[in-house]
Amino acid sequence: MAVYTNLSAADFSALLRQYDVGEIVSAKGIAEGVSNSNWLIETTQARFILTMYEHRVDLDDLPFFLGLLDHLAAKGSPVPRTIHDKAGAAFRMMDGKAVALIEFLSGVSVDRPNAAQAYAVGSALAGLHINAADFPDSRPNSMGLAAWHSLFADCGEDGLRKIDPALPAIVAEELAFLDANWPQDLPRSVIHADLFPDNVLMLDNHVSGLIDFYFACTDITAYDLAVTHAAWCFTPDGSFQPEIARELMRGYTDSRPLSDAEQQALPLLARGATLRFMATRAYDWLNTPVDALVTPKDPMDFARRLAFYREQGEGAFPARQSQGID
Amino acid sequence: MAVYTNLSAADFSALLRQYDVGEIVSAKGIAEGVSNSNWLIETTQARFILTMYEHRVDLDDLPFFLGLLDHLAAKGSPVPRTIHDKAGAAFRMMDGKAVALIEFLSGVSVDRPNAAQAYAVGSALAGLHINAADFPDSRPNSMGLAAWHSLFADCGEDGLRKIDPALPAIVAEELAFLDANWPQDLPRSVIHADLFPDNVLMLDNHVSGLIDFYFACTDITAYDLAVTHAAWCFTPDGSFQPEIARELMRGYTDSRPLSDAEQQALPLLARGATLRFMATRAYDWLNTPVDALVTPKDPMDFARRLAFYREQGEGAFPARQSQGID
Repeated sequence: MAVYTNLSAADFSALLRQYDVGEIVSAKGIAEGVSNSNWLIETTQARFILTMYEHRVDLDDLPFFLGLLDHLAAKGSPVPRTIHDKAGAAFRMMDGKAVALIEFLSGVSVDRPNAAQAYAVGSALAGLHINAADFPDSRPNSMGLAAWHSLFADCGEDGLRKIDPALPAIVAEELAFLDANWPQDLPRSVIHADLFPDNVLMLDNHVSGLIDFYFACTDITAYDLAVTHAAWCFTPDGSFQPEIARELMRGYTDSRPLSDAEQQALPLLARGATLRFMATRAYDWLNTPVDALVTPKDPMDFARRLAFYREQGEGAFPARQSQGID
Repeated sequence: MAVYTNLSAADFSALLRQYDVGEIVSAKGIAEGVSNSNWLIETTQARFILTMYEHRVDLDDLPFFLGLLDHLAAKGSPVPRTIHDKAGAAFRMMDGKAVALIEFLSGVSVDRPNAAQAYAVGSALAGLHINAADFPDSRPNSMGLAAWHSLFADCGEDGLRKIDPALPAIVAEELAFLDANWPQDLPRSVIHADLFPDNVLMLDNHVSGLIDFYFACTDITAYDLAVTHAAWCFTPDGSFQPEIARELMRGYTDSRPLSDAEQQALPLLARGATLRFMATRAYDWLNTPVDALVTPKDPMDFARRLAFYREQGEGAFPARQSQGID
């Protein structure tokens, strides 16, 4: 949540001259992205987000991320297009760092979605999966089961115990369970993998933007729905919101019906999703200086959601087809 | 340089309903201001900066700061207007913190001004002093000579020595000199007191905005010119830029000629200006956690400018009237 690099007016002007986007009118560093610097740029023609990739992002992955935006935008998904420079490049180097100019999309992130917004998010996610089907590139999930093992190992049992005395046992038990049961044969596709409310822009009840694709990868399609479910269907104090879950599921399945295998796997996939966010949050919790400006997010939020999914199973994922049956 | 508070879409919408500014379209936290949180807000009508006063800013000072913006804008200075709410209030309280909605101004800050830009800044500063003349409120300078004493005392001799072995002696000598010689009878007015390039928005060679008035106060008018001189007339590596200084002075004095007493006091006032920024930078240098995201600015930059002003005296401030004389 910071701008790590200082760019001057001359830097902005020199950069924008490489694009066909008009002259600079305004540039404001924005407090978005944890591993990139971002500026909201206005030119005489339009507004853009300028992203400078500071670290964590592997340059080799940029063609995947930026090409995916173009592919999805061309197919009608509400994602920002990558602006290519005059030579056609999707990103440029500036002082040894990659920068990309990306379309600005209106909208605000909602903290507490209503039912119509949950439906819209489900629908947009399904659209993303459908529209990505013929995207030719792929990228392994760098935040999959193996990464959870490795992040928790880095935290160490003592570290996890410092966060919460119960955490080491929860993690060990769940990792063992998921190792033994993680599905191998469900449909796969490009997934967003991090579709938290922060990463969805809305205007009223309408999704105007899906953003921040820097965890996008090729993985189990229904896992993306499970991540989104875990991210959207609980209040800040951890209460499950059944109506939000129902509308998210309905919005998704109206566009992309789930197979029985996918539907049945959702509770397990959601347990994986909670572990994924527990892993990065636990790591950040232990590795953020106590006097840093940024307060790390509590890993135990997702431990509570894990307990919920373990307890509720399929009840957390109301399926359309069962609605009239029992 | 951060956003300290998280506001939700619902928070923004509820706030904007108190103003006659249209519906929210976008809100981005921006990385500006060290003691406030700021968002760039777009509505169906226009764009605004929403500022939340987190600390440092005394609520009792807000009517001065916000009223000054309205006064200067009405007189034609390029400063953002305060947007008043439907009840006419210049600021509102939100979760116990004051927030103000301020006009958005285009433009970018220049790191290395050209001569025409220096002229324009001098001219805009003179305009500010002239336009503020009939502003009815006043505010003492909380960052005057007494504050420099107190900030350096907080740093302690050991602290200053940690920054640079020469610093304690420089500070002691200069404080004693300024105590004995600080002018008491120069013209006073409302001054900006912090007109660094960061706080000036430009479009080409034209000043489109003077911003960040949170150090504005009533003090020696020519001191503001000295601050601006110290802030603008050196390259990042500390070289004095005589052409920038000449054009800054020319731009200022074309609109507001200096009295002989003001002209002669400039070297002394500039020494004070360097000490003022050495004081806050030294304090921040010693009080910023080593692992914070923000790198504190080097207090010694201004120690070098102080040495320059001590050495050059009036030579740093080319006066119009002397141009044809010798």
